Amino acid sequence: MFIRNAWYVAAWADEIGEAPLPRRICNEPIVLYRDAQNRVSALLDMCCHRGAPLHMGKVVEQGLQCGYHGLIFDRSGACVSVPGQDRILPRTQVRSFPVVEQDAFVWIWMGDPAKADPAQIVPWPYHNDQTNWPHRHTMYPIKAAAMLMVDNLMDLTHLGYVHTSTIGGNPSQHVEAKMETERTPLGLKFTRWMLNSVAPPTYVKAVGFQGRIDRCQRFEFVAPGSVLQWTGAAEVGTYRDGDTSDSKLQFRLFHGLTPETETSCFYFWSSANGFRQDDPTATQQLFDQVGAAFLEDKAVVEAQQARLAELGEGGLVDIVTDAARLHMRRTAQRLLAEEQPPQAFAAA
Amino acid sequence: MFIRNAWYVAAWADEIGEAPLPRRICNEPIVLYRDAQNRVSALLDMCCHRGAPLHMGKVVEQGLQCGYHGLIFDRSGACVSVPGQDRILPRTQVRSFPVVEQDAFVWIWMGDPAKADPAQIVPWPYHNDQTNWPHRHTMYPIKAAAMLMVDNLMDLTHLGYVHTSTIGGNPSQHVEAKMETERTPLGLKFTRWMLNSVAPPTYVKAVGFQGRIDRCQRFEFVAPGSVLQWTGAAEVGTYRDGDTSDSKLQFRLFHGLTPETETSCFYFWSSANGFRQDDPTATQQLFDQVGAAFLEDKAVVEAQQARLAELGEGGLVDIVTDAARLHMRRTAQRLLAEEQPPQAFAAA
Amino acid sequence: MFIRNAWYVAAWADEIGEAPLPRRICNEPIVLYRDAQNRVSALLDMCCHRGAPLHMGKVVEQGLQCGYHGLIFDRSGACVSVPGQDRILPRTQVRSFPVVEQDAFVWIWMGDPAKADPAQIVPWPYHNDQTNWPHRHTMYPIKAAAMLMVDNLMDLTHLGYVHTSTIGGNPSQHVEAKMETERTPLGLKFTRWMLNSVAPPTYVKAVGFQGRIDRCQRFEFVAPGSVLQWTGAAEVGTYRDGDTSDSKLQFRLFHGLTPETETSCFYFWSSANGFRQDDPTATQQLFDQVGAAFLEDKAVVEAQQARLAELGEGGLVDIVTDAARLHMRRTAQRLLAEEQPPQAFAAA
Repeated sequence: MFIRNAWYVAAWADEIGEAPLPRRICNEPIVLYRDAQNRVSALLDMCCHRGAPLHMGKVVEQGLQCGYHGLIFDRSGACVSVPGQDRILPRTQVRSFPVVEQDAFVWIWMGDPAKADPAQIVPWPYHNDQTNWPHRHTMYPIKAAAMLMVDNLMDLTHLGYVHTSTIGGNPSQHVEAKMETERTPLGLKFTRWMLNSVAPPTYVKAVGFQGRIDRCQRFEFVAPGSVLQWTGAAEVGTYRDGDTSDSKLQFRLFHGLTPETETSCFYFWSSANGFRQDDPTATQQLFDQVGAAFLEDKAVVEAQQARLAELGEGGLVDIVTDAARLHMRRTAQRLLAEEQPPQAFAAA
Repeated sequence: MFIRNAWYVAAWADEIGEAPLPRRICNEPIVLYRDAQNRVSALLDMCCHRGAPLHMGKVVEQGLQCGYHGLIFDRSGACVSVPGQDRILPRTQVRSFPVVEQDAFVWIWMGDPAKADPAQIVPWPYHNDQTNWPHRHTMYPIKAAAMLMVDNLMDLTHLGYVHTSTIGGNPSQHVEAKMETERTPLGLKFTRWMLNSVAPPTYVKAVGFQGRIDRCQRFEFVAPGSVLQWTGAAEVGTYRDGDTSDSKLQFRLFHGLTPETETSCFYFWSSANGFRQDDPTATQQLFDQVGAAFLEDKAVVEAQQARLAELGEGGLVDIVTDAARLHMRRTAQRLLAEEQPPQAFAAA
Repeated sequence: MFIRNAWYVAAWADEIGEAPLPRRICNEPIVLYRDAQNRVSALLDMCCHRGAPLHMGKVVEQGLQCGYHGLIFDRSGACVSVPGQDRILPRTQVRSFPVVEQDAFVWIWMGDPAKADPAQIVPWPYHNDQTNWPHRHTMYPIKAAAMLMVDNLMDLTHLGYVHTSTIGGNPSQHVEAKMETERTPLGLKFTRWMLNSVAPPTYVKAVGFQGRIDRCQRFEFVAPGSVLQWTGAAEVGTYRDGDTSDSKLQFRLFHGLTPETETSCFYFWSSANGFRQDDPTATQQLFDQVGAAFLEDKAVVEAQQARLAELGEGGLVDIVTDAARLHMRRTAQRLLAEEQPPQAFAAA
């Protein structure tokens, strides 16, 4: 079961060039392609003639041509050419999906096209601002449900256990971090304060901290799959009054989790450098360090997925630090429930 | 569901030497072996004692000996020796399958042995005539249903899309080819005329055509899995009156599609050179070029299989060039229906 | 269905060091670890908080710490620390399993802990006697049910077919071997005599036999998964009166078959040298030769498993040499039946 009336990251815009790109989203095989007018489109990746995947075809002037018997489909999914045949039956068409290219992403809407409103897409202007926020991005395929990866981002006490040698720092700092949480229509925001704490190795490497530091992290979850992150750090004492504007280190991360199947997902993420913007090495190092940490997450969450797939979540016990995670899950459950057809009275 | 009362190619005769050969046919594990009298036999590949595969045993004078505890089975499947035991229970036997070695093939009958008539086997004498039709043969394992590979051969408009760079030529030539079709008891024959057309690269390479040519292809489908092909080409104008006897280029292809499982098959094929018979290079080049083209078919049909296995054939739309393919499918459906036990009236 | 109220070999004791060891036993994911007090413990390999496998964590002073959010479990499975939380709900616990370290093995009890009696563990003191029985040990993962491997050891006529080139010797010797069988509460013992027989290549290599020999093998099966073996050989005539005390060659093998899943198992085995105890080369050669033979068993039994999984054991036919095997199976069936809850009368 997936939330379908929602925008998901389907691809990075720069993944889609001349060759059609196949990608399974919410367990449907999709083909993404860019036409001569530079428009990205998304169709079901299966020709309606004999079922060949359309991604094996090629982009031609009229649209996307199947590589088996040459039928051509326009971006609405309508067939506009059947070789050897003048009349085309109206049902000769494949399903199309609304897509929007914005902020270096291609967003896709997997539900009712009539409800697809591009204004609902999470803006992320940092991707367009290479001066103040030079960034790098990539995608990790994950063998775990998208929700388990969002879970991971909602309980940051894991930093002290999963990321000890990279971005973590001391476990007790993370457990004792002060949390301020605010609910939003599509999720929640939270701020974590770790004042007077030990700088993790990656922070020292980035800006040369000496001695203890103040750390602050601001997260926002926007259902169903976006997590926006601002991270800052400064010499100890700087954040004492809750003002983070004078940060020596700051960066923004985008986390986009898109379901591939019920037990796998795509992790689209970017890191934007807000501390040494004119130094490409700093941008690259930030990306490398974040990427190394996310591979640590990938390993533990994939192993978790295997256990849950086998033994279920029935006997699990929530703990105090699950608060944000549980609110995130309730939001997702509510959206999912809203999409389901109303049940007949007798069925209950 | 497979057509069972029919002859399928089980192997090339030269595949079966001293070592027993395991092969799954119509989803049954079969072992093929050649005995001291040079006879090929086929048994279910599972010892009736403890279930070990018989192909792990060896051929001995009395028959095929299981490699686990030494039981020996003759070619009828009867056990003729149980180590340490004088009396052999009559039910100590494995299933055997009728086989016929003919024209370099080993044919197998997977249905009721009482109905197995070797006279029904498709003759292919070209394999025995290395003077006029020197040939080469091989087998491609295909991860797609045998019927999808036969489909592929029944709609040759795919040549212009799948084989553009090899044996294809211009797409519109294939789409506009004139078709003459004739129905037969076990399938159909069709002839495709492409007069005054561009020579595909492989034809030019084979006989040095300069300029436009007349092309002709004659196909015959014999249910359930044989497709017989004659292909010819000549200087433009030669075929004007429908007479193809004066062909500068001609070759014969045999396509034998044998189900392994519901979603995989064996593609036994050969190419016989009828144009430069005394030149082994020409025989080899023909084989190489045909083989390269068939790998293109394999790629698209395997991808098609994956989509159909997931999403079904429910919404697919037939087009005009499907005519021969649809007749082939109806023939196969009829044969399959004839094999099914009559249904009780109330079941309908 | 597995026999659960029984001791199985879970691991070799030397497999369990600083890093927790994951191992699936009777289709349950288990984590084995050794604590600071050098005690081996076994827990279900899944944290009760979010389901992460505990083997990805680490051993700390209080017990085993989950590598995701830091919960700590003691060897009884009780959670003794939840980061960021003072009160721990009693149900915050994972399942634990009785384990005993003895004779170089770690034994595990997969059933009702109240019934776990260490006195029932098969003793194997040879592992502790490097002077008289220097040994080597290892584990082979097998893609077949544990019972099929025990089957293999109960019908030794397979030696003449599976192990012809290694430990086998002449097939008819094995088939004609005189068997003496004795039933025991948890299985059976049998002795096989092969007097005046050809020495197999490995025996000649071990002690330089020239000419024919007397061979004797004593086996004991102890349900559910232990097979104890003594093998001896001497110059022809030595065993004439049934006395094997004067053996030129003798060794002891331990075979421990532990179910991983219904169709896979672990084969823990050791070989103890009782003929040239002061020669490490002899100990190693014995190990190498036995190991090579067991790989031959592995190949045929894994192939057998695949056939049985597909086609079932329904039509199989028992033969005379199956007697010991059938008694072993009846013993296992009886133990399994004794574990099942009594069925209500009406259910039959």
